[in-house]
Amino acid sequence: MQVSLIPVATAVNPAALHGTTAVVFDVLRATSTIVTALASGYRRVYPVADAGIALALANERSFVLAGERRGEKIAGFPHGNSPLEFIGGPDTAYHMSEISKGPSFNNNVWKTSDDLVLTTTNGTKAIRRAQSAHKVLTGSLLNARAVAQAALREGLDINLVCAGTAGRFSLEDTLGAGFVLAEIMRQLSQATSEQHTASINMDDLAITAYGLARFYHNDPLSGLFAGRHGQKLLRLGLEEDLHWCAQLNRFDIAPVFTGKYITVCSAAYAC
Amino acid sequence: MQVSLIPVATAVNPAALHGTTAVVFDVLRATSTIVTALASGYRRVYPVADAGIALALANERSFVLAGERRGEKIAGFPHGNSPLEFIGGPDTAYHMSEISKGPSFNNNVWKTSDDLVLTTTNGTKAIRRAQSAHKVLTGSLLNARAVAQAALREGLDINLVCAGTAGRFSLEDTLGAGFVLAEIMRQLSQATSEQHTASINMDDLAITAYGLARFYHNDPLSGLFAGRHGQKLLRLGLEEDLHWCAQLNRFDIAPVFTGKYITVCSAAYAC
Repeated sequence: MQVSLIPVATAVNPAALHGTTAVVFDVLRATSTIVTALASGYRRVYPVADAGIALALANERSFVLAGERRGEKIAGFPHGNSPLEFIGGPDTAYHMSEISKGPSFNNNVWKTSDDLVLTTTNGTKAIRRAQSAHKVLTGSLLNARAVAQAALREGLDINLVCAGTAGRFSLEDTLGAGFVLAEIMRQLSQATSEQHTASINMDDLAITAYGLARFYHNDPLSGLFAGRHGQKLLRLGLEEDLHWCAQLNRFDIAPVFTGKYITVCSAAYAC
Repeated sequence: MQVSLIPVATAVNPAALHGTTAVVFDVLRATSTIVTALASGYRRVYPVADAGIALALANERSFVLAGERRGEKIAGFPHGNSPLEFIGGPDTAYHMSEISKGPSFNNNVWKTSDDLVLTTTNGTKAIRRAQSAHKVLTGSLLNARAVAQAALREGLDINLVCAGTAGRFSLEDTLGAGFVLAEIMRQLSQATSEQHTASINMDDLAITAYGLARFYHNDPLSGLFAGRHGQKLLRLGLEEDLHWCAQLNRFDIAPVFTGKYITVCSAAYAC
């Protein structure tokens, strides 16, 4: 099984994804927000590249609308791209006190729909760019283990697609990919030979991501703080978002992009 | 002081290097070979991109000629790109027994000149591409500490230029850059405030390289074995080259590219 890492989504070659599993990372914050929303009760998240189209879709279908550009909520949009705006389900809310001493967690969405429309600077575009893959998952620190398991289950070569920030390499996406890789390696090492016979062949960027995750494995938060985009979010007063996104394996779900929306497949809800 | 990492030399923007110190890495093997040759008594190494020009220069000036394409010696050239072909000075030969049990170290050059002409697939081109920088150093694991010290001494922003392999990211070059960064951080942390007042601002790729070096710091050799190009050299039977190149801080010299050749500056030999 070949595992390759694509450091920025703008470098994706759609043809190279054919017949593979793609895992898309925009750790700060789109893919962290997506898994949080789905874990909190949303059924579908629509990743939309264009803000106007996102607005039209949300209006037409009475979906919840969220969007961000340059780290900040789009003017006139009810919600931005903070995962903290989409918590509230039983699986999320009760944990907030553990990661925050601040008083700023009262802005949970009054969830008027099962559907969320999300448009962001990098992440939602990256998900769309990866759609030529056989299966597209969205990854983050929050669900690294579940995504690793889902990707292994597919049995295909894996492309770890890092969104990057405005076409540039980003530390946090590579770190997220590294944590998924570390989980893949762990799960393979524990599997019996009947469960997994595949050996992993990582490219140089994937090995680098793995090394980075090992370096930060006791303190993922410091990795999110270190990068350029993390620093920008800190300047915008969004430190609590970083604390949230740094929770390793908080959720046991692997969101799948169907080509239209992102959802969690289950026996009750096929996709 | 800003420290940036350029992951492949083909991505170098010459204008962005103006007024900075560039450190070029082609750990397997050009920059490891260059520092080995200079430590072994060569005075100047001429990095030449084109094999024909390299041959003509060597013939015209009676220089020693070496060159490699796709990991192998260029047909008709007396020497390839193995650092082991250029050892022999008092500072290198006596150490070989420590890193090898094999009998294959009898191919030292009969050094007929102080000058070596070297043409390689990636490294010599990378050095040429970096020449718009104020100062161009060549780095490797073998001289990480000396290069870090020389780069700090310049007091300029630093660009770590990884050659990469045929335009692709390479693990070993990033690892070399990471070891230089780790040395920079160590030296800054030990310096008194009179010596260094600069604080370091690393970009995301530089932080990633630093994390990678920390991950491999007890076993650099396994890093060189892990990458794609390291694997290729192993298949070519060049395992001893990897052992040589993995020696951290073996040499205390910082080669400088003058625009014409690479040399070691000293009080006796200004450049």
